[in-house]
Amino acid sequence: MGNRIITISREFGSGGRTIGRETAQKLGIPCYDEAIIEKIAEESGFSREYIKERGEYTPSASWIGNALAGRDFNGYSPSDQLWTVQSNIITELARKSSCVIVGRCTDYVLKDKADCLTVFIHASMEKRAERIVRVYGESNETPQKRLKDKDKRRRAYYQMYTDTEWGIARNYHIALDSGVLGIEKCVEIIFGLY
Amino acid sequence: MGNRIITISREFGSGGRTIGRETAQKLGIPCYDEAIIEKIAEESGFSREYIKERGEYTPSASWIGNALAGRDFNGYSPSDQLWTVQSNIITELARKSSCVIVGRCTDYVLKDKADCLTVFIHASMEKRAERIVRVYGESNETPQKRLKDKDKRRRAYYQMYTDTEWGIARNYHIALDSGVLGIEKCVEIIFGLY
Repeated sequence: MGNRIITISREFGSGGRTIGRETAQKLGIPCYDEAIIEKIAEESGFSREYIKERGEYTPSASWIGNALAGRDFNGYSPSDQLWTVQSNIITELARKSSCVIVGRCTDYVLKDKADCLTVFIHASMEKRAERIVRVYGESNETPQKRLKDKDKRRRAYYQMYTDTEWGIARNYHIALDSGVLGIEKCVEIIFGLY
Repeated sequence: MGNRIITISREFGSGGRTIGRETAQKLGIPCYDEAIIEKIAEESGFSREYIKERGEYTPSASWIGNALAGRDFNGYSPSDQLWTVQSNIITELARKSSCVIVGRCTDYVLKDKADCLTVFIHASMEKRAERIVRVYGESNETPQKRLKDKDKRRRAYYQMYTDTEWGIARNYHIALDSGVLGIEKCVEIIFGLY
């Protein structure tokens, strides 16, 4: 039997990463999240910070300027280069073994390439705000502002590289509100679908 | 304990109605779908055909013309009147007992009024096309054309009366692809969340 991949797309602060990790643990298969950043860093020379930030988000300010900056004569930017390396690594991981992969447009990258269960995790602004303060600590900006900014840039990144809208129910096999259902219930449901 | 309502929004041909009915049966609670049409007919005087068609869909052609037609001096159209009767009946049913309600923007109507589990059921165009021919038979139009028309008008209706976009993952507690997961699995998951 071929490999089976669970792809987890998630709103920032929804606990999608935890759900991915716990589901993988229950299934006894690897979960790739931070490990992908390491692999991309090794293969590309990009810094971990750049990969973390630009492998899922459009730049925060002066979008057009940033998007055009640093393009080579073919119009190929560092961000495009990162997308290519990232996509190749994701495809390679899916070929190697069954696994859970969190974020990085994996659902799109593996479309028609692997047997995937595509998952989207979301939660209300209130639940996510509470969670990011608990998990990542306070910052100068309000949690609401941080979430809005992350949502906007993640949506734009997804749209830019996949030409598909982010967070539309029909693009995923299952979408779950982790704030209402709870992390454990989400893990249980995804586990039961594998 | 108060009543618990399962609201099922669905793409046409996705089997959402069957999922609602089977979940209700398993839970031993009523499922309202066609019964709502009967109730609306009794209370409003609208014909069953009009209710069926205009309680979930915008008119098929000449949208602006139709939307404006028949408005009284307050700008209140027959469609608005149907919306009001329909919303009142849905609210009344939710007050009476725990139940499953299929379609008719129930998730929006009961927002902040009842303890709801909001579900969205969708499936690929191919799966739905195959299903509508099997369930509703052939027609003069291709199944794809029928689905596109229904999708468009149902989305427009939802948007018009709720000012919210239809089919966005974050608007539902759970969204399921019945074509990939299968009707039975969807019933099992919803049953497990009740």
